[in-house]
Amino acid sequence: MSFKLDARLEADTYWMGDLHLSRVLLMNDRRYPWIILVPMLEGLKELTDLSEEQAATLLQESRVVSQWLIEQGGDKLNVGALGNVVSQLHLHHVMRKVDDPAWPGPVWGHSPAEPYAEDQVKALKQSLKSALKLDSNLD
Amino acid sequence: MSFKLDARLEADTYWMGDLHLSRVLLMNDRRYPWIILVPMLEGLKELTDLSEEQAATLLQESRVVSQWLIEQGGDKLNVGALGNVVSQLHLHHVMRKVDDPAWPGPVWGHSPAEPYAEDQVKALKQSLKSALKLDSNLD
Repeated sequence: MSFKLDARLEADTYWMGDLHLSRVLLMNDRRYPWIILVPMLEGLKELTDLSEEQAATLLQESRVVSQWLIEQGGDKLNVGALGNVVSQLHLHHVMRKVDDPAWPGPVWGHSPAEPYAEDQVKALKQSLKSALKLDSNLD
Repeated sequence: MSFKLDARLEADTYWMGDLHLSRVLLMNDRRYPWIILVPMLEGLKELTDLSEEQAATLLQESRVVSQWLIEQGGDKLNVGALGNVVSQLHLHHVMRKVDDPAWPGPVWGHSPAEPYAEDQVKALKQSLKSALKLDSNLD
């Protein structure tokens, strides 16, 4: 598989691991628990570019990620595939809180990210690895 | 089924018809081809509140709507479940163009809607009815 992650997604996120179809990325913005799923297939732009079977797999992976985010606590989960800036198909999952900076508007394009500290990322990665049964080759 | 559409969704949209699970609404904003699917079940807030079977049905219905929007023409489809303002679960499908008012930002909360003329709504409804095989009891 010749999948290559978009350079901007790579720069803005931490790699948490891979599921069957999707790469799991943590947006490097500690203001929001924010996971991005990127199906590891080349040339995808729209959700409808996935086959029915691939779309069903993405739905399952999205549900597992969503459940983990809901367990982190918050008021409303925002799930969306936009892709106006980064065209490589990717699915956002952002846990929102009524006192977060962008509430009740969308987070996309709202304000600059605030990066995590490294130990925060490690803790989130451990939690995700356990909840999502992520590829254990990743440390 | 005691489903009741949220009052704000009702005020902001035209009812295009019903699919097996979802009510099909046209956002009354002629700047964007914009369809909202609302699963006709009470008490839903998050996508994960749907059973696996219901979620699979919503995915199928979303794909049909997405295909119709792509056929209308545009540059990128935005699909999202936000619900920060209206908590009743609803799934947006917005066809974006590089010269639309909000590009490349999200449409939600960007600027006031510009209503359709009635004849535009009728034409879109006819096209949707045909493409989605919507409930034929609706005129």
